[in-house]
Amino acid sequence: MNLKLEKIAEYLQGEVRGDAQQLISAAAPFEIAGAGQITFAGGAKYLKKLADCPAGAIIVPKGAECPSKNLICVKNPQVAFIRIFELLHPAPKSLAYLQKPGISPDARIGKNFACGQDAVISHFVTIGNDVCIGERAVIYPGVVIGDGVKIGDDTLIYPNVTILDRCIIGSRVIIQAGTVIGSDGYGFAPDGEKYCKIPHLGIVQIDDDVEIGANNTIDRATFGKTWIQQGVKTDNLVHVAHNVIVGENTLLVAFVGISGSTKIGKHCILAGQAGIAGHLTISDNVIVGPQCGVAKDVAAGEIVSSGLPEMPHRLWLRVQNIVPKLPEMKKKISELEKRLERLEGKKDGESISD
Amino acid sequence: MNLKLEKIAEYLQGEVRGDAQQLISAAAPFEIAGAGQITFAGGAKYLKKLADCPAGAIIVPKGAECPSKNLICVKNPQVAFIRIFELLHPAPKSLAYLQKPGISPDARIGKNFACGQDAVISHFVTIGNDVCIGERAVIYPGVVIGDGVKIGDDTLIYPNVTILDRCIIGSRVIIQAGTVIGSDGYGFAPDGEKYCKIPHLGIVQIDDDVEIGANNTIDRATFGKTWIQQGVKTDNLVHVAHNVIVGENTLLVAFVGISGSTKIGKHCILAGQAGIAGHLTISDNVIVGPQCGVAKDVAAGEIVSSGLPEMPHRLWLRVQNIVPKLPEMKKKISELEKRLERLEGKKDGESISD
Amino acid sequence: MNLKLEKIAEYLQGEVRGDAQQLISAAAPFEIAGAGQITFAGGAKYLKKLADCPAGAIIVPKGAECPSKNLICVKNPQVAFIRIFELLHPAPKSLAYLQKPGISPDARIGKNFACGQDAVISHFVTIGNDVCIGERAVIYPGVVIGDGVKIGDDTLIYPNVTILDRCIIGSRVIIQAGTVIGSDGYGFAPDGEKYCKIPHLGIVQIDDDVEIGANNTIDRATFGKTWIQQGVKTDNLVHVAHNVIVGENTLLVAFVGISGSTKIGKHCILAGQAGIAGHLTISDNVIVGPQCGVAKDVAAGEIVSSGLPEMPHRLWLRVQNIVPKLPEMKKKISELEKRLERLEGKKDGESISD
Repeated sequence: MNLKLEKIAEYLQGEVRGDAQQLISAAAPFEIAGAGQITFAGGAKYLKKLADCPAGAIIVPKGAECPSKNLICVKNPQVAFIRIFELLHPAPKSLAYLQKPGISPDARIGKNFACGQDAVISHFVTIGNDVCIGERAVIYPGVVIGDGVKIGDDTLIYPNVTILDRCIIGSRVIIQAGTVIGSDGYGFAPDGEKYCKIPHLGIVQIDDDVEIGANNTIDRATFGKTWIQQGVKTDNLVHVAHNVIVGENTLLVAFVGISGSTKIGKHCILAGQAGIAGHLTISDNVIVGPQCGVAKDVAAGEIVSSGLPEMPHRLWLRVQNIVPKLPEMKKKISELEKRLERLEGKKDGESISD
Repeated sequence: MNLKLEKIAEYLQGEVRGDAQQLISAAAPFEIAGAGQITFAGGAKYLKKLADCPAGAIIVPKGAECPSKNLICVKNPQVAFIRIFELLHPAPKSLAYLQKPGISPDARIGKNFACGQDAVISHFVTIGNDVCIGERAVIYPGVVIGDGVKIGDDTLIYPNVTILDRCIIGSRVIIQAGTVIGSDGYGFAPDGEKYCKIPHLGIVQIDDDVEIGANNTIDRATFGKTWIQQGVKTDNLVHVAHNVIVGENTLLVAFVGISGSTKIGKHCILAGQAGIAGHLTISDNVIVGPQCGVAKDVAAGEIVSSGLPEMPHRLWLRVQNIVPKLPEMKKKISELEKRLERLEGKKDGESISD
Repeated sequence: MNLKLEKIAEYLQGEVRGDAQQLISAAAPFEIAGAGQITFAGGAKYLKKLADCPAGAIIVPKGAECPSKNLICVKNPQVAFIRIFELLHPAPKSLAYLQKPGISPDARIGKNFACGQDAVISHFVTIGNDVCIGERAVIYPGVVIGDGVKIGDDTLIYPNVTILDRCIIGSRVIIQAGTVIGSDGYGFAPDGEKYCKIPHLGIVQIDDDVEIGANNTIDRATFGKTWIQQGVKTDNLVHVAHNVIVGENTLLVAFVGISGSTKIGKHCILAGQAGIAGHLTISDNVIVGPQCGVAKDVAAGEIVSSGLPEMPHRLWLRVQNIVPKLPEMKKKISELEKRLERLEGKKDGESISD
């Protein structure tokens, strides 16, 4: 496909500076884009190098200038670049040959199946009774969908995902391979030395525009729902326990674990390997650092951290021996201070008594 | 279903206080239970509010009193509530339409298959040779079961689980979706710069009444067995390495990792993201805190912890700069002490020489 | 099988000391090997006990002596033992009945499939278009392979693995069950409060002789490739993000997470639950300790650590209260030092003024 820069600017709702007739055939990263290709300058680092960039056109933030280059000025150059990239290079859908709309003869479907127009149900998919799947949704091979599940339009469920009974998945949701939605919550009542399983009759609800990474586990609620709100994006191997709520547009990075009944606000970022205790409230716009264990509520907008960074092993051997002695050290400092005060006092006393 | 309170008390082996003829039709949590419904008061917090609870009946510990209410006194109110809840609200089995006893024509089964009465083998299940599956066991779609595997009565294997050759699974076991039982242990012999794979000929044995969460990985032993003993409950994304033994009724919370050949005692709790080094002995009734790394044996009944809790990011930036300086700080304190002693000594000397 | 010691020595390229005609029928661990069995003494601990070992023969390092025993001296006793063990006890392949070369009638295959001689494609396997699978490769049940994937000779893909479009897997690779190769990288461009998905058009390339554990997730690159080089071995539940490179013969232990675009060198060891931030360079022969968070580049040959080991819970409660006060403690020490200096100075002053 060849597009004139003016057409691209129109598509991106941006403004051309330079040759609006320039033809663009491809999109490429800043470092490798050549003549006839479009790229973007996302930050100061790249904006400084505009004049040296051989690309046929560069998407830049409003206000950026470079008279020798063809620019498209937009509000958000990275997002604009993604949009033009996808237009010029439409990604082949995975397992393209399966993408014929309709139900594979090798899928097994329960009663009362409502299958949206142009939806794809691949081989070796099992679907329970009373399931409703939206238009253009793609259910890849090996997926198992329990009774009463609802899945919205344009949603992609990658291979070997399991979605258990009555869970609700929104529209334009992507669930990467191997993920489990709706496993029983981890709840057991002590019964002497043994444990008695607490029934989990609730569901998982995943709202529109969510992306769930590979091999996640999202448990169903005891009653009510575990709720992943609109626009949340989880990385791989994330665990969300029963009755958790994750607010809109929050990011959960790989290996994040959220314990039961905790509420995470909107637009938070929980970095990799962070763990959140149960029954907490993490408010909106919170950032939790990598490997950080959170044991208390966190107020809106706070940034909390706790993991210690790497150090040379020999130093660490000494540090890890000292950490358990911190209470002793603290006491010693207080003691030294008192002795010092006494000494200072005596001297004062002496000078007075002189 | 409507049950008289006296019938419920009989079923729970409890004692009625109040109107034994009261009819109960449902069970519900304390906060929402209404007339005609039964609930329970599990702790002091709820026992204080008995008089205000509109429920038709309340299950309470022996000794609790509230003359204005219908009570059932039992030893363990939470467990009694779960039992009556399950009687009044029998949970629909997942994928109910698959629950017709028998082998789906879409399952593939090896030689010498011993299939227990009323067992369910769903679609797209693969079963090896010489496999034995107990009565009323349910094998959900997409499960793969290796040669020589034995599975007990009433065991549930959720979708897309893999159980490899010769592993033994007890009765009344639940394995949540996506879990892998019997993958090769992580053992490699250094061979110059390369590694030579150590054969893993052992098995995994999972005893009765165990529940394994979703997307767990439990490796087979080098020789002998990796052994999950009776009543153990694991959360999601738990990893148990080769030759590990996990004692009866121990709880492994999400992301717990146990390294090779470690022995965990009975009735322990390993909190989320805890990691246990290899070849250790963690004795009975031990509690390991969240994110805690355990590098030494732990004696029976001990509680060990190590993860640091969250703190404001700016404070943490300073803390993490200081932690590597702890050895220096400790030295400085000793030095200050010596200088102080010298000073105190001099002064004493002076006073003597006065 | 019965083998003379001289034949075994020839096979292992070792040297017999003792009775070269001794017949050996089995291989067993040092503690349990009896007459007619061969074992190995891998380190000082076992070499001290050679004279007491009832085994029919012992594989030892060159230079070891024990006149009363039949020895085979080799360069690497453990590797030699693995080789003779595998000869004497050929491991049955998993799901042996499936191991008839050829394509199961219950597999679904796309166009242009190049299937190597003696390869096994099991039941309920889905293979896309333009896929090439090497000789003697085994694809276990429930595996899904995307369009354009290449898999080398003698590679084993265990059940319920997902390998998405265009990924390249080498020869003699083992991928344990439940693993996902080629899921989309975790990349989103901020777009106001929302996030815009960054397309991931790259692939995952896994070189020869790699072993990937169970339930791993290895994301495809944005552009280019995520690259697992020759001889790498990963444990279970490992996460490798987009555009990461893992160098030859590196070990990634359970729950290791590597963030996007980081480069790990050759022959490194990343211990369990370690996490590496993005865009870093970890050079060759580095060891990263368990639970260690790495936030900076690490030079070749370094050992870095950071996780704190377990301590008694009551002590830890005090320690965790003190850690956030470390900046205060450090300040206090400086202050004490200054006061002490002043005091020492005054005294000096006094003695001078005396």
